[in-house]
Amino acid sequence: MAMSANTPHTLLLKNPSILKTPTPTTTGIHLFPITRATTKPISIKCSYSATVVAPPTSASAQDRVFNFAAGPATLPENVLLKAESELYNWRGAGMSVMEMSHRGKEFLSIIQKAESDLRKLLNISEDYAVLFLQGGATTQFAGIPLNICKPDDPVDYIVTGSWGDKAFKEATKYCKPKVIWSGKSDKYTGIPAFDGLDQNPDARYLHICANETIHGVEFKDYPTPKNKDSLLIADMSSNFCSKPVDVSKFGIIYAGAQKNVGPSGVTIVIIRKDLIGNAQEITPVMLDYKIHADNNSLYNTPPCYGIYMCGLVFEDLLAQGGLVEVEKKNVKKAQILYDAIDESKGFYRCPVEKSVRSLMNVPFTLEKSELEGEFVKEAAKEKMVQLKGHRSVGGMRASIYNAMPLAGVEKLVAFMKDFQAKHG
Amino acid sequence: MAMSANTPHTLLLKNPSILKTPTPTTTGIHLFPITRATTKPISIKCSYSATVVAPPTSASAQDRVFNFAAGPATLPENVLLKAESELYNWRGAGMSVMEMSHRGKEFLSIIQKAESDLRKLLNISEDYAVLFLQGGATTQFAGIPLNICKPDDPVDYIVTGSWGDKAFKEATKYCKPKVIWSGKSDKYTGIPAFDGLDQNPDARYLHICANETIHGVEFKDYPTPKNKDSLLIADMSSNFCSKPVDVSKFGIIYAGAQKNVGPSGVTIVIIRKDLIGNAQEITPVMLDYKIHADNNSLYNTPPCYGIYMCGLVFEDLLAQGGLVEVEKKNVKKAQILYDAIDESKGFYRCPVEKSVRSLMNVPFTLEKSELEGEFVKEAAKEKMVQLKGHRSVGGMRASIYNAMPLAGVEKLVAFMKDFQAKHG
Repeated sequence: MAMSANTPHTLLLKNPSILKTPTPTTTGIHLFPITRATTKPISIKCSYSATVVAPPTSASAQDRVFNFAAGPATLPENVLLKAESELYNWRGAGMSVMEMSHRGKEFLSIIQKAESDLRKLLNISEDYAVLFLQGGATTQFAGIPLNICKPDDPVDYIVTGSWGDKAFKEATKYCKPKVIWSGKSDKYTGIPAFDGLDQNPDARYLHICANETIHGVEFKDYPTPKNKDSLLIADMSSNFCSKPVDVSKFGIIYAGAQKNVGPSGVTIVIIRKDLIGNAQEITPVMLDYKIHADNNSLYNTPPCYGIYMCGLVFEDLLAQGGLVEVEKKNVKKAQILYDAIDESKGFYRCPVEKSVRSLMNVPFTLEKSELEGEFVKEAAKEKMVQLKGHRSVGGMRASIYNAMPLAGVEKLVAFMKDFQAKHG
Repeated sequence: MAMSANTPHTLLLKNPSILKTPTPTTTGIHLFPITRATTKPISIKCSYSATVVAPPTSASAQDRVFNFAAGPATLPENVLLKAESELYNWRGAGMSVMEMSHRGKEFLSIIQKAESDLRKLLNISEDYAVLFLQGGATTQFAGIPLNICKPDDPVDYIVTGSWGDKAFKEATKYCKPKVIWSGKSDKYTGIPAFDGLDQNPDARYLHICANETIHGVEFKDYPTPKNKDSLLIADMSSNFCSKPVDVSKFGIIYAGAQKNVGPSGVTIVIIRKDLIGNAQEITPVMLDYKIHADNNSLYNTPPCYGIYMCGLVFEDLLAQGGLVEVEKKNVKKAQILYDAIDESKGFYRCPVEKSVRSLMNVPFTLEKSELEGEFVKEAAKEKMVQLKGHRSVGGMRASIYNAMPLAGVEKLVAFMKDFQAKHG
């Protein structure tokens, strides 16, 4: 394969099927997008005059959209690049993470590191088990009462949005839940004062949804159950790992991964260990926390690749300085977006009470609602996608999870001002 | 970024964090494994004498092991390469499949294509719903009786291995199951004659595990329920899409994806539509087939990336000519492996009755059982991994699913002969 020095510039790859369309450069040399340059033989041969210079800006950054989806949602670019680089052959294992036995030493190292890093991020004590499960938060809506309650146990639900409402409805199958506060009549725009809550002193637990993804309502602090033996339980799907949380206040924290910490298909349950082992007899084995805790989340085959991705995200969050630093970034992003809305003189409106506006999901409407379709369409043309509000509430929604860069929010705000200038 | 022609050879990338350790070449030039040459600015600058020649054989083929794991298991190399090439930016969408809203048009196209291709592969009629769920076959062990039975309904289980036994035990929570045949006393090495089965004429269904992953026992044809209103239900986790199956014989077929068709975290349920909608009141909503069928598997966020991977595998299976062709390859692979065992004069032994030996999972022992550890260790040195038998049965097990190349089985057989020559 050795070549003489004066052959014209060539860049050869053994497997041409992996090449996409060549991109002409200003020098006339073709730069091929090489998808597996690591593992395919490359022969680069240059004559004395060869100078190959790639475009000054990254094609990746050019092609990437700002994705404001509510979940699955944007992931950190460096995590995606890492996953891409390891997809075919994970760290010399000779296989993809997707192909690994869940009982092999390679995957064990992955899941153990993921758990350990999550424990660091949230400062989770050994009094709590960390479980990597499947089925989304919706499965836990049943799993929690099945594991924590007897059929006649009363439990309290604060309902600040659609997800809390779904959790309550599912619990009616397995215990005696009561909605002690609902924001429904105010279209889920607020959170109650805690001291006025009509808690049942016998309630086995008090359930909240810490951040309502659809309505953009977020608990800024947490109520205390009336009875000291009662538990606070929180669905944190859409603000999990977006800020520090004092885990010791909770009996159970649970979250679908697909907002802040990974792809869909992984559900994380953080549960105080003394609560494990009391499931009702009718509990499907896969909903019994004991079986998963006893087997370190490996009772049956877990969602291995999703857990691997969560692990990469946890590493990234630690590298950013942990959740204190992450929260600062999230506060800044949310601030400039809410400011843009509030300073628009009513052109944009956010219905949520200011004190409980979500750092993660920012719903807003247009005073001229007939322009909302155009807003979403024009934004998409500028590579800002998934800004349409949830079908149940309409309007727009910008989900700005951990992995949404500040630049994405800044671009959205600039677009909003332009749009208002055109249509205001 | 333009450079003069006589600067020494350099290969520059903007983001050095994506570079692994440079590999020295014989010319003294460093070849960096480039993980995203497509998307990072590259400046290649060569003096007149630069000649860079990569190793003559593909690093990918060199590095890849033959992975005989029982699941998660080896995936087709071309599927992995495709996934790798699309991971960062799926077909120009500007995002990874892992980041896509499950309700966006891009992901809808992925899941609809996956379902459509699976219907082609198995010739599934419109009388059946195809569901992409979570939780593994183990979740369906509960889901099936919860959806199909009243609590007092009798049902029959044929137990030909550990998985069938687990399915039976879970069903005791939700109906009145009976084991009408068990292979346990023969260490799960056989399958009963169908005509002698003591079926309950009132059984709501007859349950089988079509291929027992641990014991290597596979149904070659299927029993018929005694009562025409009774259903045949099969766990096909470990031989799903390994051969043609007449779906119309079954009420329900279910399978975890992580053997033949994808990564872990996806469970596929094929169910006759008239069976949907009768779940017991205690059924968790996520185990109710009706909710998933009514919402085309999008009631809550599905395991999107896993479904995408299954879709790539389905495309690959169709491209191979469908399951008739796939079965031919599987028969050939299994044949040469079982022949090697049977022709070893007892050095290797497979305990399973010849007529029901699995095409997918080949368990075998050594006459000199003290050599089994060495067998597994030596094989791993030659890049054949995960050959240790399941912890519950010992010995060895070679899982040779669809994606195991013939070359892998040939290499294993050659190794077995060498090993026998050394130790026989």
